[in-house]
Amino acid sequence: MKILGIDPGSLNCGYGLISAQETKSPAGQFEGGRCLKGFVYISSGRIVMQASKPLHERLKDLYTSLSEVIAETAPDEIVIERMFFAKGVKAALSLGHTRGVVLLASTLSGFPIFEYSPLEVKQAVVGYGRADKNQVQSMVKEILKIRHQLSADGADALAIALCHANMQGPLSGLNRQLQQMKVVKR
Amino acid sequence: MKILGIDPGSLNCGYGLISAQETKSPAGQFEGGRCLKGFVYISSGRIVMQASKPLHERLKDLYTSLSEVIAETAPDEIVIERMFFAKGVKAALSLGHTRGVVLLASTLSGFPIFEYSPLEVKQAVVGYGRADKNQVQSMVKEILKIRHQLSADGADALAIALCHANMQGPLSGLNRQLQQMKVVKR
Repeated sequence: MKILGIDPGSLNCGYGLISAQETKSPAGQFEGGRCLKGFVYISSGRIVMQASKPLHERLKDLYTSLSEVIAETAPDEIVIERMFFAKGVKAALSLGHTRGVVLLASTLSGFPIFEYSPLEVKQAVVGYGRADKNQVQSMVKEILKIRHQLSADGADALAIALCHANMQGPLSGLNRQLQQMKVVKR
Repeated sequence: MKILGIDPGSLNCGYGLISAQETKSPAGQFEGGRCLKGFVYISSGRIVMQASKPLHERLKDLYTSLSEVIAETAPDEIVIERMFFAKGVKAALSLGHTRGVVLLASTLSGFPIFEYSPLEVKQAVVGYGRADKNQVQSMVKEILKIRHQLSADGADALAIALCHANMQGPLSGLNRQLQQMKVVKR
């Protein structure tokens, strides 16, 4: 299956596509649940909006370009970064505009949508919720065995896709932590 | 000509349609410019989003409903409230999502888009930039000779349309103020 991660920014929108093998969970407590493994990098990039254009034209450009990316990559699932914070009200309004259009383009494509916070993404990929951009980029390249240069936006988008893949397995991510806690209690 | 005003909110989106007669400016300093007068109320309403739905579904509902409103009313020009402020970052993000979708639906319709700040709208309709919602509603009903009840969102959207119409005449709104200043200086 293919997972498309999207990282919406005010002027740049990163995207990254990975594939993962889908298997059923082995026998045990979580039998029957799905499990994703063997993550492979397919592509990544970013949509750049022209700051000189009026806002409504920038949003139209973003919508058109992102709809093309979604149609071309034909993902099984789309994952978008969730936002709670921004550097002030003006930045939040600006980011909200872009994110609204990203959510709309994704929803209209008909593919299932998932959202994770930056903290969840960093926790899943680096193992530390306050990791910086360089650490995220290094881990993404390491996990996906990427040797070439990645844009920061593309790396963030791939991290979002990886976070979602990591959250699926009954013995991975948060579920693994929960199981370890149960084991310790016993 | 028909002017559609839109007032985007986080859960409600008001809209109001007015018509205005378009004439050429009389001979004089601003000869040849366009002048709008004889404002007539056509319709107004609001699109209500269901708070219980996930954000991306709410945005899809808004996009679908607003695109229908634009197609049915077939305006010559669309006017949207511009935003700079919100009650905190979370409210700004929420409002930004809605406004991004409103701007996109309007732009994709192909009609020309104009934006005014709440201060400009209140200044144009009430004559006072810090007027409250009741004052705006009263003046909108007075100017457009509306006898029935108006929703607050519908009234705000009509005010936005009236603001735009008022800004067009060479001897109205801000231009009139500027001319008076020139007269005083002489």
